[in-house]
Amino acid sequence: YGAAFYDEYMPYERMDTDFALMKKAGMNLIRIAESTWSTWEPHDNVFDFSHLTAMLDKAREYNLHVIVGTPTYAIPSWLMKKHPEIMEETGDFRRSPYGGRQMFDLTNPDYRFYCERLIRHEMEVVSQYKDVVIGFQLDNETHNSGAYSPLAQKLFVESLKKKYPDIKDFNHEFGLDYWSNRINSWEDFPDVRGTINGSLAAAYRAFQRGIINDFLSFEASIVREYAEPTQFITHNFDFGWDEWSVGPQPNVDQPAAAKVLDIAGADIYHPSEDALTGREMSFGGDIARSIKKDNYFVLETEAQGNPGWLPYPDQIRLQAFSHIASGADCVEYWHWHSIHNSFETYWKGVLSHNLRPGMIYNSVSDFGNEVKELAPHFLHLKKENKVAILIDRRSMDGLLSFPISDSLSYNKIFRWFYDACYEMNVETDIVYSEDDFSSYSVLLVPALYSASDETIAKLRQFAEQGGHLVLSFKSCFANENMKVYHDDQPHNLTDVSGMTYDLFTKPQNVNLVISSKAAPVSEWMELLEPATAEIWASYDHAYWDQYAAITNQKTPAGGSVTYIGCYFEKDVLKEVLRKAFKEASLSLPSLSFPVIHKEGINTQEKKVHFYFNYSGKEQTLLYEGKTGTILSLNHTVAKPEESSLSMGTLKSGDSVSLKPWNLLMVEEF
Amino acid sequence: YGAAFYDEYMPYERMDTDFALMKKAGMNLIRIAESTWSTWEPHDNVFDFSHLTAMLDKAREYNLHVIVGTPTYAIPSWLMKKHPEIMEETGDFRRSPYGGRQMFDLTNPDYRFYCERLIRHEMEVVSQYKDVVIGFQLDNETHNSGAYSPLAQKLFVESLKKKYPDIKDFNHEFGLDYWSNRINSWEDFPDVRGTINGSLAAAYRAFQRGIINDFLSFEASIVREYAEPTQFITHNFDFGWDEWSVGPQPNVDQPAAAKVLDIAGADIYHPSEDALTGREMSFGGDIARSIKKDNYFVLETEAQGNPGWLPYPDQIRLQAFSHIASGADCVEYWHWHSIHNSFETYWKGVLSHNLRPGMIYNSVSDFGNEVKELAPHFLHLKKENKVAILIDRRSMDGLLSFPISDSLSYNKIFRWFYDACYEMNVETDIVYSEDDFSSYSVLLVPALYSASDETIAKLRQFAEQGGHLVLSFKSCFANENMKVYHDDQPHNLTDVSGMTYDLFTKPQNVNLVISSKAAPVSEWMELLEPATAEIWASYDHAYWDQYAAITNQKTPAGGSVTYIGCYFEKDVLKEVLRKAFKEASLSLPSLSFPVIHKEGINTQEKKVHFYFNYSGKEQTLLYEGKTGTILSLNHTVAKPEESSLSMGTLKSGDSVSLKPWNLLMVEEF
Amino acid sequence: YGAAFYDEYMPYERMDTDFALMKKAGMNLIRIAESTWSTWEPHDNVFDFSHLTAMLDKAREYNLHVIVGTPTYAIPSWLMKKHPEIMEETGDFRRSPYGGRQMFDLTNPDYRFYCERLIRHEMEVVSQYKDVVIGFQLDNETHNSGAYSPLAQKLFVESLKKKYPDIKDFNHEFGLDYWSNRINSWEDFPDVRGTINGSLAAAYRAFQRGIINDFLSFEASIVREYAEPTQFITHNFDFGWDEWSVGPQPNVDQPAAAKVLDIAGADIYHPSEDALTGREMSFGGDIARSIKKDNYFVLETEAQGNPGWLPYPDQIRLQAFSHIASGADCVEYWHWHSIHNSFETYWKGVLSHNLRPGMIYNSVSDFGNEVKELAPHFLHLKKENKVAILIDRRSMDGLLSFPISDSLSYNKIFRWFYDACYEMNVETDIVYSEDDFSSYSVLLVPALYSASDETIAKLRQFAEQGGHLVLSFKSCFANENMKVYHDDQPHNLTDVSGMTYDLFTKPQNVNLVISSKAAPVSEWMELLEPATAEIWASYDHAYWDQYAAITNQKTPAGGSVTYIGCYFEKDVLKEVLRKAFKEASLSLPSLSFPVIHKEGINTQEKKVHFYFNYSGKEQTLLYEGKTGTILSLNHTVAKPEESSLSMGTLKSGDSVSLKPWNLLMVEEF
Repeated sequence: YGAAFYDEYMPYERMDTDFALMKKAGMNLIRIAESTWSTWEPHDNVFDFSHLTAMLDKAREYNLHVIVGTPTYAIPSWLMKKHPEIMEETGDFRRSPYGGRQMFDLTNPDYRFYCERLIRHEMEVVSQYKDVVIGFQLDNETHNSGAYSPLAQKLFVESLKKKYPDIKDFNHEFGLDYWSNRINSWEDFPDVRGTINGSLAAAYRAFQRGIINDFLSFEASIVREYAEPTQFITHNFDFGWDEWSVGPQPNVDQPAAAKVLDIAGADIYHPSEDALTGREMSFGGDIARSIKKDNYFVLETEAQGNPGWLPYPDQIRLQAFSHIASGADCVEYWHWHSIHNSFETYWKGVLSHNLRPGMIYNSVSDFGNEVKELAPHFLHLKKENKVAILIDRRSMDGLLSFPISDSLSYNKIFRWFYDACYEMNVETDIVYSEDDFSSYSVLLVPALYSASDETIAKLRQFAEQGGHLVLSFKSCFANENMKVYHDDQPHNLTDVSGMTYDLFTKPQNVNLVISSKAAPVSEWMELLEPATAEIWASYDHAYWDQYAAITNQKTPAGGSVTYIGCYFEKDVLKEVLRKAFKEASLSLPSLSFPVIHKEGINTQEKKVHFYFNYSGKEQTLLYEGKTGTILSLNHTVAKPEESSLSMGTLKSGDSVSLKPWNLLMVEEF
Repeated sequence: YGAAFYDEYMPYERMDTDFALMKKAGMNLIRIAESTWSTWEPHDNVFDFSHLTAMLDKAREYNLHVIVGTPTYAIPSWLMKKHPEIMEETGDFRRSPYGGRQMFDLTNPDYRFYCERLIRHEMEVVSQYKDVVIGFQLDNETHNSGAYSPLAQKLFVESLKKKYPDIKDFNHEFGLDYWSNRINSWEDFPDVRGTINGSLAAAYRAFQRGIINDFLSFEASIVREYAEPTQFITHNFDFGWDEWSVGPQPNVDQPAAAKVLDIAGADIYHPSEDALTGREMSFGGDIARSIKKDNYFVLETEAQGNPGWLPYPDQIRLQAFSHIASGADCVEYWHWHSIHNSFETYWKGVLSHNLRPGMIYNSVSDFGNEVKELAPHFLHLKKENKVAILIDRRSMDGLLSFPISDSLSYNKIFRWFYDACYEMNVETDIVYSEDDFSSYSVLLVPALYSASDETIAKLRQFAEQGGHLVLSFKSCFANENMKVYHDDQPHNLTDVSGMTYDLFTKPQNVNLVISSKAAPVSEWMELLEPATAEIWASYDHAYWDQYAAITNQKTPAGGSVTYIGCYFEKDVLKEVLRKAFKEASLSLPSLSFPVIHKEGINTQEKKVHFYFNYSGKEQTLLYEGKTGTILSLNHTVAKPEESSLSMGTLKSGDSVSLKPWNLLMVEEF
Repeated sequence: YGAAFYDEYMPYERMDTDFALMKKAGMNLIRIAESTWSTWEPHDNVFDFSHLTAMLDKAREYNLHVIVGTPTYAIPSWLMKKHPEIMEETGDFRRSPYGGRQMFDLTNPDYRFYCERLIRHEMEVVSQYKDVVIGFQLDNETHNSGAYSPLAQKLFVESLKKKYPDIKDFNHEFGLDYWSNRINSWEDFPDVRGTINGSLAAAYRAFQRGIINDFLSFEASIVREYAEPTQFITHNFDFGWDEWSVGPQPNVDQPAAAKVLDIAGADIYHPSEDALTGREMSFGGDIARSIKKDNYFVLETEAQGNPGWLPYPDQIRLQAFSHIASGADCVEYWHWHSIHNSFETYWKGVLSHNLRPGMIYNSVSDFGNEVKELAPHFLHLKKENKVAILIDRRSMDGLLSFPISDSLSYNKIFRWFYDACYEMNVETDIVYSEDDFSSYSVLLVPALYSASDETIAKLRQFAEQGGHLVLSFKSCFANENMKVYHDDQPHNLTDVSGMTYDLFTKPQNVNLVISSKAAPVSEWMELLEPATAEIWASYDHAYWDQYAAITNQKTPAGGSVTYIGCYFEKDVLKEVLRKAFKEASLSLPSLSFPVIHKEGINTQEKKVHFYFNYSGKEQTLLYEGKTGTILSLNHTVAKPEESSLSMGTLKSGDSVSLKPWNLLMVEEF
């Protein structure tokens, strides 16, 4: 439990004050050392690690653990002057100006040379602090979406050349005859930024993700030379972003990038106050857990964050427990203090600009001290979920080149599935095409636009062996190179799904006919033609009423394939999923959002239940677990006099009243 | 009747299957060979026309006619590498990247050299297929809006130099003293892209259109060397675009560009399903007919097109007959099959991605076989319209530099007039300033912002000789160089219109006072001061009520001038037009949209009537023509069992019920 | 009273007609000679001032005064060809194309060389017309927001170097350690356009304003060499712009720039017809008066202006008197005639394009002749206001880098205060941080985000010495370099304001609790913690209700500090201000918008009252001044037969009826 800390940014020297405050608040961890390359190497090959050693000395004194970062996401101005070509070249044919971060050509050998020299110097310094430093973070939120330098493009062409020894195969697979885009010699390869070929654009995006993997591997190999086996290596992964974390990050292949890591880290940001729902912490946690198939670190989350995210006094605690309930083994705030200059002046930390303990510090401290005692009950919490959602970055690429509509993005479809499960209190794991997902009962597949024959075979097998497969529209439509399959849709699933289609359109005044309700269809509809499948829903329309909208077919092994051919309201989706879960014999909890239930197995092999009230109103819930000990109930920072201290045991069927923005934690006997 | 066909794009070889399907569907025509330069000339000066000859051989075998295109709208990558300066320089000072089409500097001599070499090789090959190839299409949708290369600008300055031997005349006419823009030596001519002078910007746009004429003429002269006199030359013109065809194309001077053609071609795209109204096919056809003052080819229109355009089963047929009723002699779909890669993957063809006959193919086939028998009754249909609408590209230029408002574009005003006529079932021709329009009864003139003294004299003469002239606001305001006339508005029409004005504003809470209704005025209002004119409408306003809004004055020869000084709802415009048509003694049909009537004279000199039901509801209509034979009535693909087969004769006054999205065709005795 | 006049732009020679019309309309002044450099110096070092001398000769003949401008805001094309680097380099790394105005690098020595040579030639010509020319205008609306040339940036670094002899102080003050932005040698300084550091961005904006001061000073020194002491020097300052004048101009430090001027000039543009409210003329006048702390010239305002600004017949007069009532000593229209080509073709002048007197000319003429007699009663009118509003360009810079929200700009907060006062008929002066504002009773301070210790000390002192200080949220938050103060907020005012805060957020469903009403809080809220202050308003919210929203504390000397911690509706602000004014013992007039009252002391030391009716409805008002003579009442151009001619005397308590868009002027005995 801790925060990112930057002695370099402080308006005056006050490390003793800060570290004493941290300890008092129950914090035991700081993350330091990213982003300050220009402070440590003020001139070419001149190093000054005095800030770093001061922080490490002081951390040792105060017995704080430290995660040390490599500060390579922002370069010093002298390096920019010396090697301006290190700055990335962007998709709109510009070289990014100096000032920001993550704007470099990660393939540039000069950039790598200076990174390596700096990291080696840093690691030599840090190797003197093996008692203090528990691990290392490589770079931060590494991105590469601006990598269009001539060198990067050359590497891309070389990768294609290797994959397609005969250039004709490349032209055929990518369909380059169209609009005279055919490339008859590799030397003729044009700048990829002008392409109108969705296959080529997607291939380049995949290549860009590969560079990130390569870069993190490069940093990891340097750090490993210096690190003790007990010191872990992590990275801070971020998510798709739109004011806050909104879903999978399209630009990073996180599981692949994490191969060189010991543990996955993530930053999770979300709205707060009345807009706090727990969704971002839930899907963020599920995704973070999927990266290494293990517990994870929340390396950054908001203390105060941006204006409008100021948590209510009890929300800091609610949020921290939410991370824990998803399997986080560490919660760190971005950042300790609020910064007085530059870009993130209003991204406020645990301390406000006055650097004195205030309302947020008090909330943090309350949680920090409460959790000291409780930690053994929930650290390394293991999840055992029956339902998985499959996410796929190639499909995100595909829907970028071939968008369904202006507003229905891949992430929106993912969240349609995710949020329906979340609100129904069905906990989910996240899996990828390359994973083995055969052990799940239900596999939900949002818009798997791009699917190789291998992946489709795995999906078939899943259903044929008794799994319950739920696919949305636009699944298995194109192969791994965004080439649309030229046989019947959905490719190689028509028999097992019992239907096919070749027509689709944007709904104009169409309703879904499902059970007794009529629900508007929007954005997209496929006109399904069932052969053997059962029709779960059809269209209310003068012409399209002869087609199906949702079909379901059972497999001999007791599995099923449900295909959802169109987009509609989330509440109707819940009805469909409920039917699918019932088919899979999953029992659904009676509770629903804003009361959220999560559970896991702790290191004592006991099951721990969490019930969260994500609302400003008191909520009554029926406890549905086995008899257990109440670890926490209605403990409150806002009005401590009202805290419920009558903790004891709880048995199935007991009724509990949850105060606004509060929680119940129970450990089964 | 046919489709664009690309053997080059197919995922596997299947030409026999495709051509057999076409024949079975009643198709007799394919358009081939655009856009695949990189396939035919894979390396500099290395040619491979095997795809082309294969298609022509097979077409001969299946007895399909072929229109062969010149594939110059997209260049191969080796040419881009060799001559990067062939890429256009755009209005925002960039060189377009390689990948798209119609992005070249049409004045570039290297581009022309390689075009010519390729076309000559192609024509030599094609000249072996004179039995198969019925005509040639030059390039495709040739545009030139990005032509800002130094060479293009040099040619522009030379054209000005030629037009204005004394540079002072140029400065005076263009008003360049303003903001120190005066150019005192031709050598000082600045890059035209920075200009804030609307006259200069408009002159450059006109120059850009001229380059297109020159380029098509260049291609035509090469093709003519090889073509037989029986083989026609055409070009595929497009329209102003905003999701679909919306009005005249501002960037091409179509009648001038078409001087080197034998027949005009056009592509017409439109929304479908419940949003199908027939408007785009109607104005598109009227414009296409105006280019060569003759029948035209629909070289491209949608089969399935973009998602959301999927026609209902009967709409394919309704659409095809709509083109015919406007005078189309050919309907070709874009395109035969749906493409599996690249930019237009979702612009679906007659076949879906599964390449098997489906709902659309069946509709196409139904129409194709029905029409075989009917064709002699409507081919080369001649129109005899009394009403013409004048469109003017210089005025479009003017309103680009001097927009009326953010939303009231030239095309919107054109469509205001056009759609009012369309909905009232008044068929119109399109004419241009340079045309002789004296034979029409009524001439409608939307926003003729830029009008030379010659044009205005013709308008005067039209009214003075008995024609009925209806002008909208903003007409005859500036001369051909966008210099506002400095005498009374409307220039040289004040006597014949009986009014003038010098004040205009944007309406704030103003209503039109016309007959008994009050209608809101929006976007623009001129404060008309009638001298001798009759006031057809005035303004309801505390101050502007002393001015007129619409005036009308008769001419001694029985003509009239109606001037509409402001913008208001289309239904009110219909009331004004009805009054003007009545003055012109035109009889108006009783039918109105969604029932649309069109008529023409066939080659047997008989009048053919078409009645279309552009709605999902059955419509009853009163037949108003002379007694004739029913050629088609309620034939339906959707529910063939309901098709009305009781065809016979129909006489004036008979009542007919039209099924949804269906039509009646009658040939008078 | 006059207009800008350009013989150069006329379509034909007609100066006699124009000047005779001006004289007939009561005009006595023209402004000439800006912007036509290319006419006067058609080729490098070749001069032709024939237009200038013709205008001056003719002005002498017609006895018109002339203000002569320096035409440097637009360069001739030959100069651009010779020195392309004179064109500015913009913030998005482009060089501006030739064509517009105010797009030059004002630091460029070549630009200055040619400016100086031209001005010297011009001044030699003009010096022959000392009887005619009453003054000079330097350049026009000088801006410099695109000044990012290498030379400009070099000068900026030099200015920093001078200010911070030790580069460490610079890094510390600007917080450049963040994201590795630290600059360890001045030679490493990166292009400022890429910076993500708000302190650096703000410093550059301030530097850009300094260049304007330097440039005007450069021009002034040349002109002074030729000018007689009786000939004044002025400049035409503009305002923040968003369709029309909306508030202070962020890009020019007007009082500093005006040090070299004798009198301030300004251009004021505003909506008209039903949207005319007088606001723009009022704040524009107050700001213009603040520049030299004296009367000012309205060098430009609209005659007809843009479409939609066409004044009603009586509005021209209402507008002119509005300027006078704010202290204008000159009202000039932009411009005399309407231009027939180029950019401002629709920015119409006194004459429409037909160049004949029309409705607007008649209104102008009516006012011009009326005012001849009245002028001695109101020229050099002095204002004696008790209330001042403090505006601060550094704070505007700060809120650009750190915006409160997408919509709540500095100018919107300024206008929140300003419009509340305006509508309550409390006249205000505008003051600046560097001014002595100690003599006012009330000082209103909108969002003084950036405030130096010196400024804050002055604000303290103001309240401590009995002044009534009203601060909005976000005041005194950061120092002059946008570094947030790291002690308690508001910096160095916590004792005198009796409160502090360290938390703020964006309101979600929060209401203000004030008197009996509840009003929604929007955009921004600070959670105030009163120590000794009285709470004027608090928040209606489940958690934030324990904080204050508005506080007030009295000082021993009878002054007070009111702090408004959040944004809400203007009508509620009026309630707050009324309370503050009452504390300051200011008596408020009973009248409110749309009846506006203004007053001043004329040169006969008599008080003149103006009452304006800014509405289309008749308004009844109670005269509250001392007994006086009616100078004007309901004189009307629109319906002269209705003009109230029964002028006489008026005494306090008399009731007067004001016609729509009309006015009452009374001079106290």
